[in-house]
Amino acid sequence: MKIFWIGTGVMGAPMAKHLANAGYEVFAYNRTIEKAKALLPDIQVCQTIEEGVKKADVVFTIVGYPQDVDEVYQEIIKHAKPNTILIDMTTSSPVLAKIINEKAQAKQLHFLDAPVTGGDIGAINGTLSIMVGGDEKIYEKIVPLLRCLGKTITYMGEAGSGMMAKLVNQVVIAGNILGIAEGLTLAKDQGLNLEKMLQVITGGSANSWQAQNNGPKMLVRDDEPGFFIKHFLKDLNLALEASAALDLPVLKAAQKAYEMLSKNDYAEKGTQAVIAAYDKK
Amino acid sequence: MKIFWIGTGVMGAPMAKHLANAGYEVFAYNRTIEKAKALLPDIQVCQTIEEGVKKADVVFTIVGYPQDVDEVYQEIIKHAKPNTILIDMTTSSPVLAKIINEKAQAKQLHFLDAPVTGGDIGAINGTLSIMVGGDEKIYEKIVPLLRCLGKTITYMGEAGSGMMAKLVNQVVIAGNILGIAEGLTLAKDQGLNLEKMLQVITGGSANSWQAQNNGPKMLVRDDEPGFFIKHFLKDLNLALEASAALDLPVLKAAQKAYEMLSKNDYAEKGTQAVIAAYDKK
Repeated sequence: MKIFWIGTGVMGAPMAKHLANAGYEVFAYNRTIEKAKALLPDIQVCQTIEEGVKKADVVFTIVGYPQDVDEVYQEIIKHAKPNTILIDMTTSSPVLAKIINEKAQAKQLHFLDAPVTGGDIGAINGTLSIMVGGDEKIYEKIVPLLRCLGKTITYMGEAGSGMMAKLVNQVVIAGNILGIAEGLTLAKDQGLNLEKMLQVITGGSANSWQAQNNGPKMLVRDDEPGFFIKHFLKDLNLALEASAALDLPVLKAAQKAYEMLSKNDYAEKGTQAVIAAYDKK
Repeated sequence: MKIFWIGTGVMGAPMAKHLANAGYEVFAYNRTIEKAKALLPDIQVCQTIEEGVKKADVVFTIVGYPQDVDEVYQEIIKHAKPNTILIDMTTSSPVLAKIINEKAQAKQLHFLDAPVTGGDIGAINGTLSIMVGGDEKIYEKIVPLLRCLGKTITYMGEAGSGMMAKLVNQVVIAGNILGIAEGLTLAKDQGLNLEKMLQVITGGSANSWQAQNNGPKMLVRDDEPGFFIKHFLKDLNLALEASAALDLPVLKAAQKAYEMLSKNDYAEKGTQAVIAAYDKK
């Protein structure tokens, strides 16, 4: 089985390597071609999308933003041979996923949306969580490939539902992380010992993955990115778009805070830096 | 050492029993005296606060609202003998705790604010988390008593800081629980499988105590109280008051949602019922 991998950034590069290590023949393409070349000699590098797509049985994509997904799939769908399986792992728009799915079907191609959570660590360790939308029979065919990339693989339903599940996940994270930031802001304002406060939070019913992993970073204002604010803002914007018919005030507050930070040199910081949005002006 | 326990509700009754079981001589008082009588014969019942306070070396209180705390402490401070240690375990106002502390000091009494988390289960099992504010030397004297009641005991600092830590904890919970409610509302609106969605949430970086414990209840609309909405609303109102100088939009959204529910027959439901606040009108 020949696999073509498009997008060899911090997530894509280690993911493509897992497939090569599992014995699959993997080709790769990246807009900045040098990043793909770092994967040589285990993975062959293609100069164009067309070149890789024409050889592939399965095409994986993990790129930046929905507009990148749209561009890349125009090329893929133009050149892919019938029955090629296309899998987008970018966190992108559920609506776009449905559109691409229809375009793919019209050309006898199979499309799955399969975004991930777990960050660069999960990509490196092969412990990602993967949410998949699209035709279930096609999903079952490529599960062995996904098992090379992630630990938890959940089939969510029709085309677009993988993307939607990821956005829902991000809404929950937004509540967790803003709640922690607001709590610690109040604690600091009132002169509480913040280390002790975080112990209390993580010791009971306020505990969360975010409190354990991002709480300590908030205390010392370590803004280094695990997960970039610019990417989280993209996800929150997509979630807002998907929930336009609903009134979700926490999501709105989160989008507002992260948008403000993004405009103030925080785009490349980690999501925990949202606590800076609460600093007194 | 003689202990007087005021407030023998779902929390206070099992807590007082732990002290009696540990060998302390315990007297109890409750506004509805029948509730205290259920503790006979292990615990003696007093007909008035005055009667119990006059005999006691240590007085514990765990009553309903700040106004109840205020009333009860007027009686306690009037009748307590010098050097009595007074410990309020109600979740109440940090400002009121400071006021009571000053009034107590003026009468050579010692006051600690020591609210708890962990619910009725924690009270029954003696596994509460207890946050303590007040004089550290007094705190050290009564730590053995607190160890009968809770597993995690954290000294937070000066008078009022136990109460403040509890309020901060509730702000964090508010973010967690509203984030889950908003995520599941979006998921339902988009036709996702909610059981699978909750698996995704609890399987990664969106995971939290609230998602694990209240998430499943939200799915089936099990509104039975673990923690009453009316009590959580009290806590959120106290947190809002304490954070008047700050802009905490998630806390504000939570207070608004729970206040609306409280006015619509949800006061006696559990906090997870907040998902009903997102139902389309």
